[in-house]
Amino acid sequence: MSKLAEAHVIIVGLGLMGGSLAGALRGRCASLIGVSRREETIESALSRGLIDEGTTDLHAVIGQADIVVLATPVRTIMRQIEEIGPLLRPGSLLMDIGSTKAQITKKMEDLPAGVQPLGGHPMCGREVAGIAAAEPTLYRGCTFILTPLSRTSPDALALGESLVRAVGANPLVLRPEQQDRLAATISHLPYLLACALVNTADALTSSDEAAWEIVAGGFRDTTRIAGSDVTMMLDILLTNREEVLEALNTYRAHVRRLAQLIASGEEEELRQALTTIRRVRREMYQ
Amino acid sequence: MSKLAEAHVIIVGLGLMGGSLAGALRGRCASLIGVSRREETIESALSRGLIDEGTTDLHAVIGQADIVVLATPVRTIMRQIEEIGPLLRPGSLLMDIGSTKAQITKKMEDLPAGVQPLGGHPMCGREVAGIAAAEPTLYRGCTFILTPLSRTSPDALALGESLVRAVGANPLVLRPEQQDRLAATISHLPYLLACALVNTADALTSSDEAAWEIVAGGFRDTTRIAGSDVTMMLDILLTNREEVLEALNTYRAHVRRLAQLIASGEEEELRQALTTIRRVRREMYQ
Repeated sequence: MSKLAEAHVIIVGLGLMGGSLAGALRGRCASLIGVSRREETIESALSRGLIDEGTTDLHAVIGQADIVVLATPVRTIMRQIEEIGPLLRPGSLLMDIGSTKAQITKKMEDLPAGVQPLGGHPMCGREVAGIAAAEPTLYRGCTFILTPLSRTSPDALALGESLVRAVGANPLVLRPEQQDRLAATISHLPYLLACALVNTADALTSSDEAAWEIVAGGFRDTTRIAGSDVTMMLDILLTNREEVLEALNTYRAHVRRLAQLIASGEEEELRQALTTIRRVRREMYQ
Repeated sequence: MSKLAEAHVIIVGLGLMGGSLAGALRGRCASLIGVSRREETIESALSRGLIDEGTTDLHAVIGQADIVVLATPVRTIMRQIEEIGPLLRPGSLLMDIGSTKAQITKKMEDLPAGVQPLGGHPMCGREVAGIAAAEPTLYRGCTFILTPLSRTSPDALALGESLVRAVGANPLVLRPEQQDRLAATISHLPYLLACALVNTADALTSSDEAAWEIVAGGFRDTTRIAGSDVTMMLDILLTNREEVLEALNTYRAHVRRLAQLIASGEEEELRQALTTIRRVRREMYQ
């Protein structure tokens, strides 16, 4: 298996995540080709210096790649794994950067024997979509989860890790189900809460014009991720449904308990609950 | 009623909010005295240049003030209004900066006739408490809600507004009940959601050490306010109980609806709901 510096890399999907990954990798590999459905996206990526070359014709270039990274929404990734599997060069590495991993790595099991599969989930992002928002610095300092399959060779994992380090991120190897469970609580649940909060504010305060002057600070932070790309989030929620629903259930029980403590005015219990929460959160970011 | 530049100002409570307000006001009024229960707090405020003078003896200085600002937790404010009312100089302005206003302004109704009462709620803050975190820049650019009573004179309101502008904030005059209703949804509800999310992450992921490596980004933003001062938040929740419970009920219905759409896999309905939410949020911050 070749080294990153000698590898011909193809990134499929030039949105925020794929475009940023391309910009961060370009110059650290032998060549970097970006693939997008739309010509304008390729032109934008070229003019911003994020890719060496670009094409809308995935099939025409795929056989040249040492490394292919799928950076499309999760269910598109799953279709693309099936579609390009037979076209991949034996010995090549197929990675993806979708936010859920169990269903994707299951699909990767069926790839031709010569292909090396590796799941990935960078824990970064912004609430703006598209190539215009792409920044080569996006991955710097972020945790980049890798989920190798049992068929993934140590060399292929090492190559994936060197790619992660090349874009400034820190690799963390997890099992696919373990990553999906953690991501459900730490990433997908916060998105849903932010969505429900936006709904609530819209329902309760939008008739009062003063509301628009005071939606600041905490509210802005808490609802930021409600601005995430809908197609991306929809794929995430529907391919991690069980884990997301479990996280939602647990969450709803905790909200109910806080509501009960406030309704009943059990001040000491409420104080204790809020104090514990404050301590736990502090410990999370020690 | 005197102008701000000629006013002797006393700020009661030198935590994050009171200490920051003092630092921002000092030099823009004739004198600024800080009052705290603890000597160390006063020493710290003096050494950081936030106040001209400090004392632990509120009663000894209160009669000198043209403006008194209560910057303690909400239920302490309510006790202090009763306690210092008879000691206030006729013609003086009594303000507070507690986050709920209906109960506080109700208490202000009983002040001696010569005193001018004015409720206030600056929509800013940080998730750190105490004088050590105080910064004179804290109020810059924030919306500072003012809730005058029917007995509050136009001159007193104008003086309060000039104080707000002097610390760099933008005054917004609301009715107390209107402010409590808006704050319940836009400020107090996000705090409770953040608390329940911390609880959920602790319950579902804390047994997995990898969780600590990936609690970043969105989760950090969404849970930030769960680190707020507990005594302050407890007073807020318990003095705005009805509005907070109504906001919680509406919120829980929206969470339930999202959970149902995910559970039943009604993809088009889910896409539509998330798309609407994304648009509404964007409109909030246009």
